[in-house]
Amino acid sequence: MLDLDKPQIINLFEFDTTVHRILNAYIASAQGNVQTGDVVHLAFSDENGDCHVKSGYIKDTASYVIKIASGFYDNPAKGLPSSNGMMLAFSATTGETLAILRDEGWLTDMRTAIGGAIATRVLARADATEVLIIGAGIQARLQAICLAQLMPDRAFNFHIWARNASAAQVLKTDLNATGHNAITVSDLNVAIGQADIIMTTTNSTKPLFADGLVRKGCHVTAIGADCPGKQELPTKLVATASLRVCDMASQSLNHGEFQTACRSDASLQVTELGHILSGKQIGRTSGQDITIVDLTGIAAQDIAITQAIIDAASCSKTQ
Amino acid sequence: MLDLDKPQIINLFEFDTTVHRILNAYIASAQGNVQTGDVVHLAFSDENGDCHVKSGYIKDTASYVIKIASGFYDNPAKGLPSSNGMMLAFSATTGETLAILRDEGWLTDMRTAIGGAIATRVLARADATEVLIIGAGIQARLQAICLAQLMPDRAFNFHIWARNASAAQVLKTDLNATGHNAITVSDLNVAIGQADIIMTTTNSTKPLFADGLVRKGCHVTAIGADCPGKQELPTKLVATASLRVCDMASQSLNHGEFQTACRSDASLQVTELGHILSGKQIGRTSGQDITIVDLTGIAAQDIAITQAIIDAASCSKTQ
Repeated sequence: MLDLDKPQIINLFEFDTTVHRILNAYIASAQGNVQTGDVVHLAFSDENGDCHVKSGYIKDTASYVIKIASGFYDNPAKGLPSSNGMMLAFSATTGETLAILRDEGWLTDMRTAIGGAIATRVLARADATEVLIIGAGIQARLQAICLAQLMPDRAFNFHIWARNASAAQVLKTDLNATGHNAITVSDLNVAIGQADIIMTTTNSTKPLFADGLVRKGCHVTAIGADCPGKQELPTKLVATASLRVCDMASQSLNHGEFQTACRSDASLQVTELGHILSGKQIGRTSGQDITIVDLTGIAAQDIAITQAIIDAASCSKTQ
Repeated sequence: MLDLDKPQIINLFEFDTTVHRILNAYIASAQGNVQTGDVVHLAFSDENGDCHVKSGYIKDTASYVIKIASGFYDNPAKGLPSSNGMMLAFSATTGETLAILRDEGWLTDMRTAIGGAIATRVLARADATEVLIIGAGIQARLQAICLAQLMPDRAFNFHIWARNASAAQVLKTDLNATGHNAITVSDLNVAIGQADIIMTTTNSTKPLFADGLVRKGCHVTAIGADCPGKQELPTKLVATASLRVCDMASQSLNHGEFQTACRSDASLQVTELGHILSGKQIGRTSGQDITIVDLTGIAAQDIAITQAIIDAASCSKTQ
């Protein structure tokens, strides 16, 4: 049995391999080849914490994966990271434990950011360079880094806005220090009107900006909404977009960004990302389309990144 | 972080402490003081296997527990045990991992058997000695052992019947070798009519015997039904019993022994075991009552036995 801690996992992580596997996992999910367990939520309201469990199995793979991820949001004040958890892999033929990856939430952060980058690459305009990132937390940082790493030939300019202006400043400085073009912006409304790509990474429960500001041709990747009541985008923007894409329709409509718009109008079409990635369904049709992708995070991503680490560990052993 | 394998767990296990904690866990559950996550089921039908995840938190305790348990029923033919899995405990104040108990299903087996013994003690007649055990698997064995250990002053006679007569013979021999009075029985119907206590431990999907055979004053503990479609007892016996008790009504009515009877007659009363154990509700009222308890297994038991092992490990460290 493989038992790895976070530094060992980070050491084994390979970006390109993981991108490849997560992309295929989205396709497998859309094609109905992923068995997904119900998402478990435990809430610890007195401690400002929660835990969720995602689980699943991609057909014809060697293992099923159970992911435990918690957020205790007062931890930083105690000098502890807010995220914790692990990925567990079990043999799909015998049930034996194959791997315990004590990643403390790192793999979830990475698969989330890689999902955002994959979706943005396939849906944004080919000439899109101006990326507005709303938020300055771990996902704001990783979405920028992963998008740039996935598309090294595109000269992205990252425009960062966050409610916490000093956090935005820190993120900008850090991105600059690692060779990315990044600036902070003070007027969110102006920045929205100039963006080719908008990535929202907050835990907001109401729209972050008004409808009518997003310009034609823009692509929006919404990462934040992952439970009932959360919403980052104006309902009308969602309802009138040229294309609504999600990682898994059942999750997005239940507890993702599309919950409000689609509850008001059940006829709104939502396409699963995997069908666009496989070419089964059409994505952007013109430079004028406004496209939106909502990513709630799916077990197939957890399985993909876990299996990538297991394979990397197996290779490093045999070398 | 505590990381224990099965031999270490068995070594730390203390019967009396665990009984005490599981009994209190039933009470906490009935009182609404346990937060229980939805049960996750993954099915691997090509491999004759399944996996389920139970999770929960008992209010005002230090940790929440996630239990992963799988059964791959062709494993024995490969020289492997059919059960696998682990119990995981996390801090309910920070989410940090406190313990990985790689018990391979052993703790689930024990908490299930202890639950059966606790329920049988509180519901069977005070003079009940003739125990019919239906089935000869791990639960048949453990139910007998735990019942005898819980009630050392009662001179139980175990009557064993199983579809597989040679397995029944092996169980009988093993129980005799460890000082228990046990015989095998060949006529199930006769044995039912003579039993003070019946414990059913099979994975049957249809009643194991006909209605009308159980005598007045008998207590029945049904262990086997743990998913939709499973049933061990005659529907009419359930419907006409003096008292129906379960570990958790929502589970029992959905996928436990009471699913069929209560679907036919929604007015049937079902009492949660914790209310009987706490004295809030009355159990057996006379030596003539036929009482039935259905145990589907609840997360509160998993939490209780996990916390008992963690505490024992902590004590053994400080000694």
